[in-house]
Amino acid sequence: MTLPNLSNSPLANYLPILSWSRTYNRDMATSDAIAAVIVTIMLIPQSLAYALLAGLPAEMGLYASILPLVAYAIFGSSRALAVGPVAVVSLMTAAAIGNLGLTDPAAIALAAGTLAFISGVILLLMGVLKLGFLANFLSHPVIAGFITASGILIATSQLKHIFGIDAHGHSLISLLGSLFAHLGEANGITLWMGMATTGFLFWVRKGLKPLLISKGLTPRLADIGAKAGPVAAVAVTILLTWGLGLDQKGVKIVGEVPMGMPPATMPSFSPALWSQLFMSAVLISIIGFVESVSVAQTLAAKKRQRIVPDQELVGLGASNVASALSGGYPVTGGFARSVVNFDAGAETPAAGAFTAIGILLAALLLTPLLYFLPKATLAATIIVAVLSLVDFSILKKAWGYSKIDFAAVAATILLTLGLGVEMGVSAGVIISIALHLYKTSRPHVAEVGLVPNTQHFRNILRHKVETRPHLVTLRVDESLYFANARFLEDYVLDRVTCDEPIKHVVLQFTAVNEVDMSALETVEELNRRLGEMGISLHLSEVKGPVMDRLKRSHFLDELTGEIFLAQWDAWDKLSRPGAA
Amino acid sequence: MTLPNLSNSPLANYLPILSWSRTYNRDMATSDAIAAVIVTIMLIPQSLAYALLAGLPAEMGLYASILPLVAYAIFGSSRALAVGPVAVVSLMTAAAIGNLGLTDPAAIALAAGTLAFISGVILLLMGVLKLGFLANFLSHPVIAGFITASGILIATSQLKHIFGIDAHGHSLISLLGSLFAHLGEANGITLWMGMATTGFLFWVRKGLKPLLISKGLTPRLADIGAKAGPVAAVAVTILLTWGLGLDQKGVKIVGEVPMGMPPATMPSFSPALWSQLFMSAVLISIIGFVESVSVAQTLAAKKRQRIVPDQELVGLGASNVASALSGGYPVTGGFARSVVNFDAGAETPAAGAFTAIGILLAALLLTPLLYFLPKATLAATIIVAVLSLVDFSILKKAWGYSKIDFAAVAATILLTLGLGVEMGVSAGVIISIALHLYKTSRPHVAEVGLVPNTQHFRNILRHKVETRPHLVTLRVDESLYFANARFLEDYVLDRVTCDEPIKHVVLQFTAVNEVDMSALETVEELNRRLGEMGISLHLSEVKGPVMDRLKRSHFLDELTGEIFLAQWDAWDKLSRPGAA
Repeated sequence: MTLPNLSNSPLANYLPILSWSRTYNRDMATSDAIAAVIVTIMLIPQSLAYALLAGLPAEMGLYASILPLVAYAIFGSSRALAVGPVAVVSLMTAAAIGNLGLTDPAAIALAAGTLAFISGVILLLMGVLKLGFLANFLSHPVIAGFITASGILIATSQLKHIFGIDAHGHSLISLLGSLFAHLGEANGITLWMGMATTGFLFWVRKGLKPLLISKGLTPRLADIGAKAGPVAAVAVTILLTWGLGLDQKGVKIVGEVPMGMPPATMPSFSPALWSQLFMSAVLISIIGFVESVSVAQTLAAKKRQRIVPDQELVGLGASNVASALSGGYPVTGGFARSVVNFDAGAETPAAGAFTAIGILLAALLLTPLLYFLPKATLAATIIVAVLSLVDFSILKKAWGYSKIDFAAVAATILLTLGLGVEMGVSAGVIISIALHLYKTSRPHVAEVGLVPNTQHFRNILRHKVETRPHLVTLRVDESLYFANARFLEDYVLDRVTCDEPIKHVVLQFTAVNEVDMSALETVEELNRRLGEMGISLHLSEVKGPVMDRLKRSHFLDELTGEIFLAQWDAWDKLSRPGAA
Repeated sequence: MTLPNLSNSPLANYLPILSWSRTYNRDMATSDAIAAVIVTIMLIPQSLAYALLAGLPAEMGLYASILPLVAYAIFGSSRALAVGPVAVVSLMTAAAIGNLGLTDPAAIALAAGTLAFISGVILLLMGVLKLGFLANFLSHPVIAGFITASGILIATSQLKHIFGIDAHGHSLISLLGSLFAHLGEANGITLWMGMATTGFLFWVRKGLKPLLISKGLTPRLADIGAKAGPVAAVAVTILLTWGLGLDQKGVKIVGEVPMGMPPATMPSFSPALWSQLFMSAVLISIIGFVESVSVAQTLAAKKRQRIVPDQELVGLGASNVASALSGGYPVTGGFARSVVNFDAGAETPAAGAFTAIGILLAALLLTPLLYFLPKATLAATIIVAVLSLVDFSILKKAWGYSKIDFAAVAATILLTLGLGVEMGVSAGVIISIALHLYKTSRPHVAEVGLVPNTQHFRNILRHKVETRPHLVTLRVDESLYFANARFLEDYVLDRVTCDEPIKHVVLQFTAVNEVDMSALETVEELNRRLGEMGISLHLSEVKGPVMDRLKRSHFLDELTGEIFLAQWDAWDKLSRPGAA
């Protein structure tokens, strides 16, 4: 395992491109270019589709796939991550913009760019301040639940395009209600075309590659053929719609997509808009960062490389700022396209820059061809892509492992489906933290005894151990802090109240990693109360950092008993007849 | 130490009065009645003063000191707690009502009663649902900082009465700004009377009791004499104001206080008002509960009794509902009056009921005498009472013990002074939890070695221990959960990356009290990566509950190494030559 060589100069820490570009050669460029072609083919329909999912004009998806990729190639630390519009962040963008209640298309586009800019600034700040660890507060079960629920929401939101109707809503119930209300307006041709395209794309995903291989293609070429499936669907439905004049028969089409370079755009600096978008931008930043980092780490591990999470923040921040300045909307590293990029042989972030050139060429040359593209085709692309995100097995796994983790997943899924993505992910984080605090506020305390013929002590309820009637040893299985200190006090007092011969209580601090000031006051109080009952309080196996801190208080002067380095020493001394 | 005998019948669990009333006798009644007289004398001026502090008519303070005391006598579990209006809760009431921007006195009184009602319902619900443990999330440093800052805010807010001017504000800065702006309107007579009264009351507190004792009074009588000081100040300033017609010369007086029984009042059930008051009611409930419980526990411990926190919630909830129904405002157990009640010999909650009779008599008979009572006198009473709450020594103590605890205290004090009580206490809780999570998200990991001639392992940096070049043992000093799992993974990989001969990594789980699902996935990943590097991963000293959970996952099948009961077994087996 080797870290990427980032430490040649201080500047190289912030510009990974300075490291890899010095050893860049023709072979690497060839690999990167081939990967870029494959990713470009995949990204063109996806970019258009995700922009529509975000409630934005299709061309913003293309713009978000050009400059942001170049910015990431300069600032990002992952060698395989492919940045651009992704499904979950597009849905979150739709929710954030929807909150504003705007109707003017120019105002909506400005808000989307501003959202990308705020999100970029937040990511850059987090990167510079080394706050990447904050993402750890999203637990795996919460992320898994959130992604699954988002996949369902996204697929449901696209059904309106398959039916050719209007429907809106940010939660599953409001979406379904709106769909049913408008079901009578469904367009038959659109429905047939949407269902056929969806079926075709599912078949491409599952059945085309084996078929091509059986027809004699190499696996590599078969793979590229399967990746081109969505492009084929786009081409065929465009030709059908144009040739049969289906747009005159109610099939909704993408319409005019401006041809040319991405525009230079400025985000809004209105304080009112910033404060309305700020929380959404925070959530988009964190979700985007978590999604990117987990993809990047998975891919880096396969080549025994490691990524630098704080540098990823800088890379993603620069991408979003670039997106805001070039007519785009919030972007992040996508799972599917990064895996494709990696499998296609991308060696460096230059593959991203080459992809940007591919998308730029599409924006310059191909947009007139997209006029007759049915929205139903893009919806089918999205539905097939996001349904692979839906994975309820996390519920079963969590149930088997821990009811608390299960509660976090289930609540995140239900709240995301019921209240929308923003509430869902916020609630998921709060629930994870609350459940963790609840668990640690009622610590496990084990009464321990000596395992015969050893110096080892274990729980009296689980192991056959020796005990002494006048000596109680309690192993506290949690750090002591404000939320659980009182619990320990009550536990110890309850244990000794009804048991007459007890003369010594030993608290075995093996698992106590911290004693904060609230807990110190509680232990002082416990010492005093036990003293009034004629019982000595001892501590054993106190760790270095905890001991350092106790020495700075008056506690050690007041302690009625002793502090033993090892629990064995406490047992040895306190079990002698004189101690009873 | 004996628990109060609450377990005779299921009903007695919820009605502690059923327990103590059966053994109630004439001696106890006499003790309770004497304590009640002393508390009544103390409570009359305090009730009036705290009502004014809350921005309410003086009589509401009296009403809040009658029925709530009876309700607590029936439902409360502490035998010494004296319930009624207290300084901090009155200030919080002022802040909550101030948020509403009301001007009509009837609407203000209705809002105050409704606040008491909501707070009572919250407390009752918390009691029935056994949620008393939630109060533990207010750490001692946060409470200490909050009380100190509140004392300063309260004293400052009363200066306007001493100067005889108008001033408003919920933070120290806005209060001082408002005071300075109006300083030119100060009334000379009011200022002299206010300063003289304040000086007199400070002297009563410090100097009167020793003086009375030196004059031959028994300590007990001297104590009662000192308690009567505020009553004397009230009587003298009333007589002066009436005799010299000072109210005609700009001295502000309490004015007409209605004579008679507390009125029967109904809280408002307007959803808009409830939603505006709800968060304030939550904060008032929690602060009131914490204040009460800490007083009650301190006093109960002196008689080797214990209180039942969840029953205290019921007692305080009933008191607040009673206050709402009888013209009062939020109440809780007060520190000073409870100590007085206890010292005066109160034996049972009946002392509270007797105090209620005393206050009722005052409301029925004495209110006309209060007409000429200067507001400056009441302000002086409050200032002298609350300055005893101000204690900056907590800052020094926290600094010496732990910088994190210091940060929590300092932030709570600054935010309470700067932004008011509600923001201060909310921020204090959030800061405590955030700092705790931050600490646990970067756990202490110690590399350990064998203490020679023992079976004991300690940190290689702190102790002289044996180690083996091919074997690294890391003791993880924290439970593994979503926020810190990644940190451990990085730590272990960094440790082994540059050290060639390592063949075995043992994670000593002595202090790992929990491994949640996120952490499990991270440890699985670590196992896989170490495996790819040819390093075996072992665990030692895994606790019962953690082991149970690991058995429910696939982790144990995939683990490249072994699980050892004791770290000594791991050392013994893995340090043999064959293991290298």
